[in-house]
Amino acid sequence: MTRTALKSSGVAELARAARDAARTLARTDAGTRSRALADIAADLRSGQAEILAANAADLEEGRAAGLSDAMLDRLRLDEKRLEGMAHAVDDVAALDEIVGRVDSAWRRPNGLAVERVRIPLGVIAIVYESRPNVTTDAAALCLKTANACILRGGKESFRSNQALGLLIGRALERAGLPAAAVQVMATTDRGELYELLGRDEEIDLVIPRGGEGLIRAVVEHSRVPVLKHYKGVCHVYVHAAADLEMALGICENGKVQRPGVCNAVETILVDRAAAERFVPMLCRRFAELGVEVRGDERVRALGGESVVPATESDWSEEYLAKIVAVRVVDGLDHALSHVDSYGSSHTESIVTRDHDAAERFLRECGSSTVLVNASTRFADGGELGLGAEIGVSTTRLHAYGPMGAEGLTTTKFVVRGDGQVRT
Amino acid sequence: MTRTALKSSGVAELARAARDAARTLARTDAGTRSRALADIAADLRSGQAEILAANAADLEEGRAAGLSDAMLDRLRLDEKRLEGMAHAVDDVAALDEIVGRVDSAWRRPNGLAVERVRIPLGVIAIVYESRPNVTTDAAALCLKTANACILRGGKESFRSNQALGLLIGRALERAGLPAAAVQVMATTDRGELYELLGRDEEIDLVIPRGGEGLIRAVVEHSRVPVLKHYKGVCHVYVHAAADLEMALGICENGKVQRPGVCNAVETILVDRAAAERFVPMLCRRFAELGVEVRGDERVRALGGESVVPATESDWSEEYLAKIVAVRVVDGLDHALSHVDSYGSSHTESIVTRDHDAAERFLRECGSSTVLVNASTRFADGGELGLGAEIGVSTTRLHAYGPMGAEGLTTTKFVVRGDGQVRT
Repeated sequence: MTRTALKSSGVAELARAARDAARTLARTDAGTRSRALADIAADLRSGQAEILAANAADLEEGRAAGLSDAMLDRLRLDEKRLEGMAHAVDDVAALDEIVGRVDSAWRRPNGLAVERVRIPLGVIAIVYESRPNVTTDAAALCLKTANACILRGGKESFRSNQALGLLIGRALERAGLPAAAVQVMATTDRGELYELLGRDEEIDLVIPRGGEGLIRAVVEHSRVPVLKHYKGVCHVYVHAAADLEMALGICENGKVQRPGVCNAVETILVDRAAAERFVPMLCRRFAELGVEVRGDERVRALGGESVVPATESDWSEEYLAKIVAVRVVDGLDHALSHVDSYGSSHTESIVTRDHDAAERFLRECGSSTVLVNASTRFADGGELGLGAEIGVSTTRLHAYGPMGAEGLTTTKFVVRGDGQVRT
Repeated sequence: MTRTALKSSGVAELARAARDAARTLARTDAGTRSRALADIAADLRSGQAEILAANAADLEEGRAAGLSDAMLDRLRLDEKRLEGMAHAVDDVAALDEIVGRVDSAWRRPNGLAVERVRIPLGVIAIVYESRPNVTTDAAALCLKTANACILRGGKESFRSNQALGLLIGRALERAGLPAAAVQVMATTDRGELYELLGRDEEIDLVIPRGGEGLIRAVVEHSRVPVLKHYKGVCHVYVHAAADLEMALGICENGKVQRPGVCNAVETILVDRAAAERFVPMLCRRFAELGVEVRGDERVRALGGESVVPATESDWSEEYLAKIVAVRVVDGLDHALSHVDSYGSSHTESIVTRDHDAAERFLRECGSSTVLVNASTRFADGGELGLGAEIGVSTTRLHAYGPMGAEGLTTTKFVVRGDGQVRT
């Protein structure tokens, strides 16, 4: 299997085939799509050898190219991870059917019966980095919602993704669905990606998943609408009336449970009234955990010598590492205005036992996920109960926050009459 | 009042003032916004003289510039029309409150209580043509949904819109809201419009309302997402099992009740099985009504000499006039594929007494509004019961079809916990 042999016969054909497949998919019933999903999961279990061989070749090339251990780990598949991928496909198959769902229905005075019915978006392009599980996760969510998809993973996982694409295509055909319903781009050429992103006649939506650099490149080259977040500068605000032990647990979880992800905490705001007790506790705990604290003057005065002076740029930094910015704020208004000025509209949490303060924060903070007394790490489609996540949007159009299956659909108006004309 | 005196102090300030106003609006309660809407309606009733004087100056300049009678009619205000505008503002005020509405709520196994809550989009720019009522309609819908708006009407109605903008601004200030919540651009300069459309940091959405030329110009120059439809090529499909008298009524209403609007019928598809009876009825009726019929060969054979031969381009034409294309199709599949190839995803209606055919059409036709046994003229926010309409979208992201108040909002996730951290 060489890259040349797999070279796309052309981006235009790929996009047109996806468009045609989307038309067919929109007319399929839920049972057919569920059977295809079950087949994909079964094939992921029975076809492990083929996938692992392709993955081994990717890993070998990656090692030769000097990829970091972290990168190689993200790229690596094994039996357990493949089982996890199969399980995730089963989970998506088990979600309630969304396409065809009547969101609301009412009758007009002239007798017209109006419904808003969920329908697929059409063709979705997903651009991602090196983790091969995105291939099956994204394919499953799109298939569940009767959308055709075009998948473009990173060059490091090229062979793994091709093997997964072949497997998915065979399962689709067995279910009587067009193989073009899920197409893995058979090229890692940047120019062809940008050509794809220009095809707004055939593609309805692009979802980039990865670092800020990838997302900015996609936005810059896309004529198709992009659902995205550039970064997650997430805050925990420790209110005057916080349970400080709870606050400590939430700060620790947000920062160290998985520092490299977008819903990790980057800035902790400590209320002036809680600072004297909380800042020393926090700095001690973070010192034990090997987390670097960058603090304003008041934090430095209370937190000891390990606190590094924060500069203006620290307030908008997405560290994605064991570093955290900490600031003392003068109450709820100050906390809200800090988030407004420096935040990324992703996720913020207030810790407090004061019901009114909590409700005000939840109402007035404009971020896409706002929490009280819980870790920012819950801002995730799976954790919030969406069943799965296709991405997170920090722009307010179409979707805001974690997007699951419903985010991959829209509604149309269905109207039943008995001859009504407009007067 | 001269244009120079009203010249904007700068597009950047305008946009930043709107952004600030949006932050304030998002924190207002429904009562304050309702009072402002009631004040606007009252002022439209008490302040008629001021508005009519400005409108008279616009009309005079329009006549001198040789505007058509139709154009002057669209531009003209009188006491009755002002009362209609005030009434429309009252209607918007009376709509159920949407901002803050909990769309859905559920509890996770770990005890987290999750809600999806409706919030405003932020800042909305509306670009329109000469009808001054759009100024108050759009302002009212945005204010109802706690969005700031920037209004840019056509140059013909410049003075009328400025007068309306002053009136709205005074009412906002009396209610304790920022006047910048509704800003009427004080310039008709194209360059400043394009500058505004480039400000994606401050503006969340652009809605152009007008002809295809206006919409294409906005799309071309906008960095901000645009909700739009280019045109409405709407179809009526007269099925084999149609009640032909009903079909005739629906075709007539769709074509002649108001030919110049986007939900008027442009193409009628007659099932082969109904053609021999229906085509002569249809052509006779349209001849009486002064509607030009452009037909395919089978229509010409059945419809008589008045039928003009249709060419390929007729099937995708939005006439916006008393002209209609008529084609005989070979059943439901043919009708669906014709709509798929030539339609504009706006609105299509099937006329039939066959329940299964109706349901298949409603399910498989992908247009944003699909009807059975009713006129395409009902594809309108007010007629469908949305309360009012800010526009129609024929792209599937965010909104699809007529958009009312709900289309001007999105949802955020609100999560209440008692110390949950992620494991």
